[in-house]
Amino acid sequence: MTKTMRRWQITAAGRENLKLIDAIIPTPGPGEILIKVAAVSLNYRDKLLIDAGFGLPNPMKEPFVPMSDLSGAVVAIGDGVTRFAEGDRVISTFIPDWIEGDGPGTARHPNGRTLGGPVAGVLAEYVILSEEWAVRGPDRLSHIEASTLPCAGLTAWTALVERGNLKAGQKVVVLGTGGVSLFGLQIALLHGAEVIVVSGDDDKLTKAKKLGAQYGINRKNVDWVETVYAITNDHGADHILETIGGAHLDKSLNAAAVTGRITLIGIFDGFSVSGSFLPLAVKRLVVEGVQVGHRKALEDLVKAYDLSDTKPIIEALYKMEDLNVALDHLDRGPFGKIVVEVG
Amino acid sequence: MTKTMRRWQITAAGRENLKLIDAIIPTPGPGEILIKVAAVSLNYRDKLLIDAGFGLPNPMKEPFVPMSDLSGAVVAIGDGVTRFAEGDRVISTFIPDWIEGDGPGTARHPNGRTLGGPVAGVLAEYVILSEEWAVRGPDRLSHIEASTLPCAGLTAWTALVERGNLKAGQKVVVLGTGGVSLFGLQIALLHGAEVIVVSGDDDKLTKAKKLGAQYGINRKNVDWVETVYAITNDHGADHILETIGGAHLDKSLNAAAVTGRITLIGIFDGFSVSGSFLPLAVKRLVVEGVQVGHRKALEDLVKAYDLSDTKPIIEALYKMEDLNVALDHLDRGPFGKIVVEVG
Amino acid sequence: MTKTMRRWQITAAGRENLKLIDAIIPTPGPGEILIKVAAVSLNYRDKLLIDAGFGLPNPMKEPFVPMSDLSGAVVAIGDGVTRFAEGDRVISTFIPDWIEGDGPGTARHPNGRTLGGPVAGVLAEYVILSEEWAVRGPDRLSHIEASTLPCAGLTAWTALVERGNLKAGQKVVVLGTGGVSLFGLQIALLHGAEVIVVSGDDDKLTKAKKLGAQYGINRKNVDWVETVYAITNDHGADHILETIGGAHLDKSLNAAAVTGRITLIGIFDGFSVSGSFLPLAVKRLVVEGVQVGHRKALEDLVKAYDLSDTKPIIEALYKMEDLNVALDHLDRGPFGKIVVEVG
Amino acid sequence: MTKTMRRWQITAAGRENLKLIDAIIPTPGPGEILIKVAAVSLNYRDKLLIDAGFGLPNPMKEPFVPMSDLSGAVVAIGDGVTRFAEGDRVISTFIPDWIEGDGPGTARHPNGRTLGGPVAGVLAEYVILSEEWAVRGPDRLSHIEASTLPCAGLTAWTALVERGNLKAGQKVVVLGTGGVSLFGLQIALLHGAEVIVVSGDDDKLTKAKKLGAQYGINRKNVDWVETVYAITNDHGADHILETIGGAHLDKSLNAAAVTGRITLIGIFDGFSVSGSFLPLAVKRLVVEGVQVGHRKALEDLVKAYDLSDTKPIIEALYKMEDLNVALDHLDRGPFGKIVVEVG
Repeated sequence: MTKTMRRWQITAAGRENLKLIDAIIPTPGPGEILIKVAAVSLNYRDKLLIDAGFGLPNPMKEPFVPMSDLSGAVVAIGDGVTRFAEGDRVISTFIPDWIEGDGPGTARHPNGRTLGGPVAGVLAEYVILSEEWAVRGPDRLSHIEASTLPCAGLTAWTALVERGNLKAGQKVVVLGTGGVSLFGLQIALLHGAEVIVVSGDDDKLTKAKKLGAQYGINRKNVDWVETVYAITNDHGADHILETIGGAHLDKSLNAAAVTGRITLIGIFDGFSVSGSFLPLAVKRLVVEGVQVGHRKALEDLVKAYDLSDTKPIIEALYKMEDLNVALDHLDRGPFGKIVVEVG
Repeated sequence: MTKTMRRWQITAAGRENLKLIDAIIPTPGPGEILIKVAAVSLNYRDKLLIDAGFGLPNPMKEPFVPMSDLSGAVVAIGDGVTRFAEGDRVISTFIPDWIEGDGPGTARHPNGRTLGGPVAGVLAEYVILSEEWAVRGPDRLSHIEASTLPCAGLTAWTALVERGNLKAGQKVVVLGTGGVSLFGLQIALLHGAEVIVVSGDDDKLTKAKKLGAQYGINRKNVDWVETVYAITNDHGADHILETIGGAHLDKSLNAAAVTGRITLIGIFDGFSVSGSFLPLAVKRLVVEGVQVGHRKALEDLVKAYDLSDTKPIIEALYKMEDLNVALDHLDRGPFGKIVVEVG
Repeated sequence: MTKTMRRWQITAAGRENLKLIDAIIPTPGPGEILIKVAAVSLNYRDKLLIDAGFGLPNPMKEPFVPMSDLSGAVVAIGDGVTRFAEGDRVISTFIPDWIEGDGPGTARHPNGRTLGGPVAGVLAEYVILSEEWAVRGPDRLSHIEASTLPCAGLTAWTALVERGNLKAGQKVVVLGTGGVSLFGLQIALLHGAEVIVVSGDDDKLTKAKKLGAQYGINRKNVDWVETVYAITNDHGADHILETIGGAHLDKSLNAAAVTGRITLIGIFDGFSVSGSFLPLAVKRLVVEGVQVGHRKALEDLVKAYDLSDTKPIIEALYKMEDLNVALDHLDRGPFGKIVVEVG
Repeated sequence: MTKTMRRWQITAAGRENLKLIDAIIPTPGPGEILIKVAAVSLNYRDKLLIDAGFGLPNPMKEPFVPMSDLSGAVVAIGDGVTRFAEGDRVISTFIPDWIEGDGPGTARHPNGRTLGGPVAGVLAEYVILSEEWAVRGPDRLSHIEASTLPCAGLTAWTALVERGNLKAGQKVVVLGTGGVSLFGLQIALLHGAEVIVVSGDDDKLTKAKKLGAQYGINRKNVDWVETVYAITNDHGADHILETIGGAHLDKSLNAAAVTGRITLIGIFDGFSVSGSFLPLAVKRLVVEGVQVGHRKALEDLVKAYDLSDTKPIIEALYKMEDLNVALDHLDRGPFGKIVVEVG
């Protein structure tokens, strides 16, 4: 094992403050594991966080490692570790202290502790995590693919499966084709559901159909709500992944089936969602927030992918030193995930 | 049985178009029951409907009987009726065709068929209903009290119990002291929960505490959300009956506990609800619409009141001919329900 | 339309009392539909009922039409029918009056009204049903395939999906390879789950694997519970379709995962199920009875098959006049369903 | 603080091997709390465990502290403790590692780690627990009352509320008048439900009615199932706490309402439960095992009692040195709980 490693850190909001530095490889303490990182996937919230400091201690008092989602291998374990052994493939959990059930937090102090801010992140060649903050990685996915599960994959799973009890034959509307949306598409198909992708880009709709979406609607050409009515024989959508928010929620309220579920997904910090009361009441809709998900649900997601030939959609792969190019790509709204290959 | 009866009807939006007329007492057809009405309770939506024609066929082609909630006795049954016999006490169901489960309706055509508009209402001395549109009345309540269950009582029950799985020890925030809110208060207490009433009127708060509410918050004097934090030791509210809507939803989002439920109640037709995304996500809140409730839930509600000494709160009782005075009272925002005694 | 039709009827328990007769084609009354039957599938309970009169009025006072599951086309409708039009493909509902939710029945008088006993059955060229007792048939299945959904298909769906909230990656144990078991296999695969089939017949296990089962265990060669532990890495089975009953339940209790669900399926009339208390408690298991399912769940099942390339497994097809040969085949324990082609 | 304390220990199965000894008061390590015990309640399983070594390492290699349920005060905390401070009232959790959700364990190795066997128990003047193995005690209960919540109280809560979603107006059958049964009675009443107690002892039935049970049935005098039908107007019991097990389950299956829940409670180790299949299927019953409950549910139970005037039922109170007299009392089947006052 080399004694030093490369690690990205940021000292203040703004991409110009991102630095790739050399650091000492740390040693795991009691209950901790040392992970040799193979891949780190990027999320839109990482971009917001780097650009605007969202969620980070402000002003940042010390250098901070960005990003939350890693796949790698355990290379050393601390005293008392029982969940993992050296050589185990692992992926990180986005919210460190949420094992299952309702998890920590109160109304006044909701749990905002997530990897990559305010808890130290993972964009480094080696990372120390509590053994409780990782789960065994999927056998059938590469590190690059596996690194996309902890945030984007789990968010879609929590919305549709853990909370939504998705079943075969249901109608799922996916808005857009970002990371969570494409996981929503795949997870819906894994459960035998029908997927309607709504996008403003015909190329992306074509790609989504190649992934198995039964329908694609270009919202620039048609009223997507009316088209959902037509496709579903007036039934509407049983589940909607609402990734746009704001006043767009109103369209989702209209598109939803009786007792349909709309999950709000994304980073709308500081922005409202709004919608008409009438469809909410008369169709008895559920509008629900989702905060990625708990560790047990991540383990369930790993099991689901390990039974399937489905692979997470990677739009682009970057080298560790090319983080800024990767972030530029993220700015452009990729089809699926962007992953940084580490080491 | 007399051959004629008195019946209110309306021929166009506007209270001036309400008429108390004499009509022939009808005869029940197959599957129908004839009810001698004893009491009819008023709902805020009746007022909107009378004043503005909300939900009614427009223009009204024929005279229409207003109001939805009756308590009375079966005095004749049609062929094939099996659910009731002469002499049975009954109350009406607000939504005629919803027995249990998800019920009728689609995304494009949600089920808006409710008694008192567009389906003919019940403010008459005798009313014909399908036997499927009534349930056995509660033994321990008077007709006057029983008449308040079909809409206001059932709405609170559906929100807190049928959908909310309310349990002892939970914290319930009730906004205001109208019919649904006071039923929410009573139903929460029946289940051993803690009730926090938020109102702008100290007199009403005093009355609510006499009914058993553990806490009353005058929202004009203090920040009610902060007070909920303080009362619940930061936990927040497990259930909120959001009767205000609009931008006020945002306060409820902040007051809600982790995984708390906010039920939207009232008539906000044409108005939006809006709120910040962040508390929805980070606390994984559920915001849900409610459309009164199904027949089986109404039967459950009757059972609950029949086991309890709790009586629905009646603010005022009016004679049938004094409907306009009753509606004026409704305008002023009563504490609990207003009931018209019939016959 | 011909004026007469062929119809099977039975006048007393015993196959010798089955008669194929000519009868007048009936005319649908108000709310009824006349169906030209294309296929009728057989269930094990039909055999018990024909052989021993199980569930039938005893002594049978009048000729009785056996069998419950049809697929056909509407050829005439009665007054007031709104759910169907002439030409619509339909399948029957096994339990006539159960639309959704909990349905009819009490503790003292559970609902035992099912087609084919005590309600008149469907093995005839033309059948009259209430429009409420049928659902639109699946577009992607033939009549022969569709006829297998109302009882066997729906039973597996209710167990795994409607009640079980099956999700991708879960482990499902299917005991045997009869009609319900193979539907369980297919429905589990439709939802991305892992299927372990337990049988005493290697040929049937080979066939089950061809249908997609990931594992087959010959219970005559190995301890199937231990093998389930081994396959699932000690996790156990999240869902078990327990089709054997009696003392065998004990094995299922041991094979089940923590919080696993065991659904009791089959006709064990007069027989007990029994098992050890300890695994029930320490793993907090759910043992649940299933009574086929409600109409809305049948509609959901149709949607699921209409989205999929999966086809119900038909072991053999018989002509209407060969009912006795079909029943003999049923005696031998087929792999999947036996269907009678009608007309 | 004295340097030594009294502590019960057992070195082998058999009451004669119980010894009250002097021991050094331990010092809490990191993450641990030292509790000055005020009261310890006894459970039937403690008796089985002492008499027969059930669940204990066999042969016991070292002295073992019996009993699981304490109420006391924190008198010292170890490094890193955040959940409690000195002076806090606490009660113990029966299953140490189950915070919420499904908790630990697999099909092959269910989680059997409980206080008082095989994990060291609490019948001592001072006890060390991980801070994760305790919850804040109820403000409105004495230590003696509070000590009954961790096992008996939580078992009834888990059955009826956490798993059963009990609601006002439902019918609850409680078999017997032991600790769990009387908690079932109280918790059902707290939620506005109707309680029917079935016992073979008229005196106990009289006492149960004084506690609020609406009905008592002496099963020696009448067929209790028929009486439940009569009381509930044929509806049956929505929830049954089945504390007898064995073939008696069959009676509960018959007494249960459509979709009713039967929770198996007690120590039936080595014994089967058995029952007829037919009522299970046709009423779609749920038979469920319960393993006390998780920590979050215990916190919920504390909240419920803290909102209520209800006090746990204590049949008798013994001094620490009189453990054997207390166990003799337990042998006789008390009405409610037996508690040992400590220190």
